[in-house]
Amino acid sequence: MSTVKARAIYGPDKTFQKTEITRRELDKHDVLIEIKFAGICHSDIHTAHGEWGPVNYPLVPGHEIAGIVTEVGAGVTKYKVGDRVGVGCMVDSCGECENCQQGEEQYCLKGNVPTYAGVDKYGEPTQGGYSTHIVVVEDFVLRIPDNIELDAAAPLLCAGITTFSPLNHWGAGPGKKVAVVGLGGLGHMAVKIAHAMGAEVTVLSQSLKKKEDGLQFGAKDYYATSDPETFEKLTESFDLIINTVSAQLDLDAYLGLLALDGTLVNVGAPAEPLSLRAINLIGRRRSFAGSLIGGIRETQEMLDFCAANNIAPSIEVISANRIDEAYERVLASDVKYRFVIDISTM
Amino acid sequence: MSTVKARAIYGPDKTFQKTEITRRELDKHDVLIEIKFAGICHSDIHTAHGEWGPVNYPLVPGHEIAGIVTEVGAGVTKYKVGDRVGVGCMVDSCGECENCQQGEEQYCLKGNVPTYAGVDKYGEPTQGGYSTHIVVVEDFVLRIPDNIELDAAAPLLCAGITTFSPLNHWGAGPGKKVAVVGLGGLGHMAVKIAHAMGAEVTVLSQSLKKKEDGLQFGAKDYYATSDPETFEKLTESFDLIINTVSAQLDLDAYLGLLALDGTLVNVGAPAEPLSLRAINLIGRRRSFAGSLIGGIRETQEMLDFCAANNIAPSIEVISANRIDEAYERVLASDVKYRFVIDISTM
Repeated sequence: MSTVKARAIYGPDKTFQKTEITRRELDKHDVLIEIKFAGICHSDIHTAHGEWGPVNYPLVPGHEIAGIVTEVGAGVTKYKVGDRVGVGCMVDSCGECENCQQGEEQYCLKGNVPTYAGVDKYGEPTQGGYSTHIVVVEDFVLRIPDNIELDAAAPLLCAGITTFSPLNHWGAGPGKKVAVVGLGGLGHMAVKIAHAMGAEVTVLSQSLKKKEDGLQFGAKDYYATSDPETFEKLTESFDLIINTVSAQLDLDAYLGLLALDGTLVNVGAPAEPLSLRAINLIGRRRSFAGSLIGGIRETQEMLDFCAANNIAPSIEVISANRIDEAYERVLASDVKYRFVIDISTM
Repeated sequence: MSTVKARAIYGPDKTFQKTEITRRELDKHDVLIEIKFAGICHSDIHTAHGEWGPVNYPLVPGHEIAGIVTEVGAGVTKYKVGDRVGVGCMVDSCGECENCQQGEEQYCLKGNVPTYAGVDKYGEPTQGGYSTHIVVVEDFVLRIPDNIELDAAAPLLCAGITTFSPLNHWGAGPGKKVAVVGLGGLGHMAVKIAHAMGAEVTVLSQSLKKKEDGLQFGAKDYYATSDPETFEKLTESFDLIINTVSAQLDLDAYLGLLALDGTLVNVGAPAEPLSLRAINLIGRRRSFAGSLIGGIRETQEMLDFCAANNIAPSIEVISANRIDEAYERVLASDVKYRFVIDISTM
């Protein structure tokens, strides 16, 4: 067991404080990673603030982790000291259920072990990437391709895979029209990835404030959802809509934008129930679906895809003492487009 | 123009009366059908009672039509006098939009012409199958295979295709577990068809009253949804759920019965908005979808499939003066499993 520096929050209304946490001794298949950068995901904020259920404080969030391998267990075969690696939203799963066997560990029937606010197989609470080191079993470690900088790699481990996976699953590609709802951390990755996949991409954002950015990320069109004409103009236009907005939307209006056999995919889950009219599904054989991050194999595929297509998130690197400020700015949608903590300032 | 006998309803709270309606002279591609049998669909009742919006009375419902060709237009190539034919829920569509071009006329972008309570291309109101004859353009006429009796064929034109199409589209077959919610006119066809497709079928019905029938139709299991243990026991069991119940259900409970990548398909549309939690989609990449009857090509495929697999609906043939009574019994779920009007009693 080793003691490492971290930043933890001590309650739903508290701020982040310097602290030290312990990381386990390396088991046979464990990898010790010196964390270089950790992205700030909206989920970190929901969890830190206790909005997704009770949390054991102090909590160290962070599931967009990029770093360097500094030690490996005796049985590790995939990684060696010095490798550039990443860790995403989960650090373990049962490995035996039918979903794990399919490589969809995120849907583990026994529940995957989340990178923070979970409990690992040793019965210990998991703590995330706002810290200098983490120990993870090699099967849940990703390889970061050489041409992706570590700071830019971090957000790919959640924002990247969360959007890549549904785009991949529902066949975004040439000849497909894809809309992305919301141009935040997830949305901007969805635009870049869908564009690189060859789809025709439209951004649906509350206002036109970020239009220039959206078009630069690869969108062909950009519409304001605050303008009712948008929904008339775009009726039955899209094959796939990726909704990155966790708030309650007028789902019926968005379903109306789907062509025959189109799918609206939520990657965020508002706490409140959603309302929709079945006729808006039936009338064009539409689907309303949800998608959760992605499996380990697909996460590696996503990293390799981003490397091959020169895709990286647009980030603002901050020092560790600015986490609270960054949280406030994320809540105010004042981030272009992902905060990444420089862990050397921990 | 010819005058034919029919049964019409004169208002939402009225009963059916004998009447006469006109059918157009045959246009080049029209077929005149002497109707032998017409099924009573729940949609007939909703429409007749004005529950789906305002209706121009008198209304002649009926979109499960089976009969014999008695005259054909000069340009008709597909049918000849004496052919055994059927007509379903639509009698025309634009034929030019991308959905029609794909053979999905039910999703015509200009709106298909419903068999009754619609307006045809001549600007005339359409009237349905509770009548002795109907004139339909040949492209919307189906061929009834020789080994399906005409009385049993009638319900296939709506109840058959409405369930065949989603089972076909979402890949019901060997190795797939399919649940059917509700064992009424649609549900009993869904069970027979899904079983014939090779899927393992479970019926989810309010009570176990019709269990023996369900198993005889081909279901492997039969559960009462009034028993809360059903939802625990069957959690994450199904690849596909066909919901034939038009009332509001606890969608979250049914979504919980779906395995990874499972789909819940509504074939009925309650008038009220439905409520669900996105987390129940996201947690297993599930979809909530809707499906509307089927295209003409697929309807013929369904009829041929039923013929090849000796599938027919379970019906109760009634005389035309018992339509009101049949409506009451449908509303009381007292039908095994479809009323079919013997048009010779018209």
